[in-house]
Amino acid sequence: MLLEKLCAKRHKEDPKGAELPGHKLMLKGGFIHQTGQGLYTLSYLGVKMRQKIEAIVRKHLNPIMQEVNMPLITPAKLWEESGRIDKIDVLAKFESKSGVDFVIAPTHEEIIVDYAKSQIESYKDLPTTLYQIQTKYRDEKRARGGLVRTRELMMKDAYSFNKSKEDLNTYYFKVLETYHKIYKELGFNNVIDIESDTGDMGGYLAHEFMLINENGADTIYICKDCGYKANKEIYELNKYDENKCPKCQSENLEKTRGIEVGNIFQLGDKYTTSLNMTYTNESGEKSNPYMGCYGIGISRCLGSLFEQSYDDCGPILPITTAPFEVHITTLSANNKKIKSQAEQIYERLEKAGIDTILDTRDDIRPGEMFADADLIAAPIRLIISPKNIEKGIIEIKYRTTQTVDNLPHEIKINKTNKVAEIIKTLKAEYTY
Amino acid sequence: MLLEKLCAKRHKEDPKGAELPGHKLMLKGGFIHQTGQGLYTLSYLGVKMRQKIEAIVRKHLNPIMQEVNMPLITPAKLWEESGRIDKIDVLAKFESKSGVDFVIAPTHEEIIVDYAKSQIESYKDLPTTLYQIQTKYRDEKRARGGLVRTRELMMKDAYSFNKSKEDLNTYYFKVLETYHKIYKELGFNNVIDIESDTGDMGGYLAHEFMLINENGADTIYICKDCGYKANKEIYELNKYDENKCPKCQSENLEKTRGIEVGNIFQLGDKYTTSLNMTYTNESGEKSNPYMGCYGIGISRCLGSLFEQSYDDCGPILPITTAPFEVHITTLSANNKKIKSQAEQIYERLEKAGIDTILDTRDDIRPGEMFADADLIAAPIRLIISPKNIEKGIIEIKYRTTQTVDNLPHEIKINKTNKVAEIIKTLKAEYTY
Repeated sequence: MLLEKLCAKRHKEDPKGAELPGHKLMLKGGFIHQTGQGLYTLSYLGVKMRQKIEAIVRKHLNPIMQEVNMPLITPAKLWEESGRIDKIDVLAKFESKSGVDFVIAPTHEEIIVDYAKSQIESYKDLPTTLYQIQTKYRDEKRARGGLVRTRELMMKDAYSFNKSKEDLNTYYFKVLETYHKIYKELGFNNVIDIESDTGDMGGYLAHEFMLINENGADTIYICKDCGYKANKEIYELNKYDENKCPKCQSENLEKTRGIEVGNIFQLGDKYTTSLNMTYTNESGEKSNPYMGCYGIGISRCLGSLFEQSYDDCGPILPITTAPFEVHITTLSANNKKIKSQAEQIYERLEKAGIDTILDTRDDIRPGEMFADADLIAAPIRLIISPKNIEKGIIEIKYRTTQTVDNLPHEIKINKTNKVAEIIKTLKAEYTY
Repeated sequence: MLLEKLCAKRHKEDPKGAELPGHKLMLKGGFIHQTGQGLYTLSYLGVKMRQKIEAIVRKHLNPIMQEVNMPLITPAKLWEESGRIDKIDVLAKFESKSGVDFVIAPTHEEIIVDYAKSQIESYKDLPTTLYQIQTKYRDEKRARGGLVRTRELMMKDAYSFNKSKEDLNTYYFKVLETYHKIYKELGFNNVIDIESDTGDMGGYLAHEFMLINENGADTIYICKDCGYKANKEIYELNKYDENKCPKCQSENLEKTRGIEVGNIFQLGDKYTTSLNMTYTNESGEKSNPYMGCYGIGISRCLGSLFEQSYDDCGPILPITTAPFEVHITTLSANNKKIKSQAEQIYERLEKAGIDTILDTRDDIRPGEMFADADLIAAPIRLIISPKNIEKGIIEIKYRTTQTVDNLPHEIKINKTNKVAEIIKTLKAEYTY
């Protein structure tokens, strides 16, 4: 991508109406634009990041589940059958011109059970887990906080169908383990799983995945002695003492805040019973499968990456999910030789599959070019200048560590392998 | 994918409620499941095809436009400003719990103009074209015909902003040309562009892209002498004689039917005027940009591939968009040696990046295995059997031509390159 062609305007001033630092940076860097309250348009930068997040999620899930796609607009009838039509606060319902009522789905338990009924007949069809990456709508009264809390959102939701509580439990913890791998590769450095209340969803057991963050909306208790972790709801429900670990009684209890970036539930047979889904078991009898459901907020993860790490200049994004891996700043691009060398390096990097943005604007000051690079937030910066070229070097700057190094000049002539190698090393840090 | 793990049940009987042959085949092969009227769940097979379609569309569009993502739920205010809130039949509106009215968008002119206003300030920012691949909702009274006509659909919609009518016109025909490349690579063998009425969209010029198909909902006139093409609306609007070409007066006029798989419009300044979008032109004055919009029905293309080509056994899908490239049928899979050889070939193909499904079921008859292969519709079939293995061959069958050939046995030992080569040759047929 050529920076001057990029349709994602950066802003010098802090945007109005945003409170969270990451939300401010997303607006300032042109990653998002507010279309309505809780409704955002993603620019090319935002879309690229979301696609990278989705690809990482798919990579880890495909070996253990199958992707499907359900509609967002769903028959109200299914929500009546499950009894949830009047129980979910954020449900939006409308009457269509066909005279039938539809629900804009905030979650898909009812819809997946309807689908699974057509697929699962006997014990031989179990276990089966299906997932989708798809839009959801939550009809919130208020929606604040940028992509961390929106009305319309992108979600990965998965649903498992199991023969027994034990099978469900085993699979559930396999997903829990996979989730940690996903968050790690997305670039989160501190996501913990904590037991949570099953709440409206029903079922036996639930966990939330919390990105520890001082601006998070959720309160978390962590015992520094025995490692016990729980959220506020668990404390309130069980009337636990806020200053004592309920497990080991230690008073070395840390109260911290977090952003919920995922949750998983052992639903049991709540939905398969209410929606009358059965299969024929080994004894030839009808039985209700046990269900689990497993969510990751894709757009919330995108927003949370900006809340996680930043400094005065801009966001500090991981190489796995930043919109670009490399940002080339060309100083004195009005010098034809310099410009053409920058273009050559750019083409070579792109050809090597390295996601690169090239800045060859010659009508703005270097300071502004660097400020733009900080807002666009590629983790690797290459600075090409007459001075460096003369010295036979290209300056490389690592955004995360703020360290600067020099690459040998010949990178421009015959290889980009050096940069590819650096990226590979950086990416290795994000595998579990 | 192991066929026995695939959650997409095939059906022996013809499904009820489907009229179009392709719709029947999609249901019969387990590609889709009807969740509500005009609302479909895509199985793993359907999702894979849709993702392949999307990837081809992105590949061709990325060099000439930038991807963004707008919300589906949009502020009614924007539709009031443009004056379209009461003019579009298929618009669904609802009052959210926040008290604000929202529209579930069937198209995004209003929303993209709102976004573009924040991005385009001066003539230097033009031309800019933005696209998205995203869900739309059309609140139809009736919805029939499977994925060819649904309430909820996946659409690629693009919007260009140009400085002048001439720039718009030049870009418009560049997109028209690119569309033909896209349809070709998707596997359509007969998509024509025909001039159409600009209708409710307004503007100067419009074209529809029609897949010639006897079951299509649209009527098309093609002059066999001068090549003039137009749709029924154009004929009715201009009161043309149905038996005569309006251009060359020839009576050699063919009346045929088609499925509309895309459309493009030169909108002019209709929306930029009504929504008050201006930029500063070279003379320092405020000016309204000219707009074009460019749609491809992604889910309709998916459905149309099934309407395009089939026989009594199943759909005939192109190698570029079929859910799998290769289907391995293993006869006598209860023979451990045979099964393990089939698995080795499968693993090798997958490793070589060839999208393969492996059938090693040992409890069903070969006839049923072949019938399943016909419904799942991979263009290349490999048949592994004791007889073939003994002869030192693997049987390869090409679905499109129904021809059978033999591959040398050593494919199983040391290479899959032969199959990769065949696929490359087959794919080459789909480039423009």
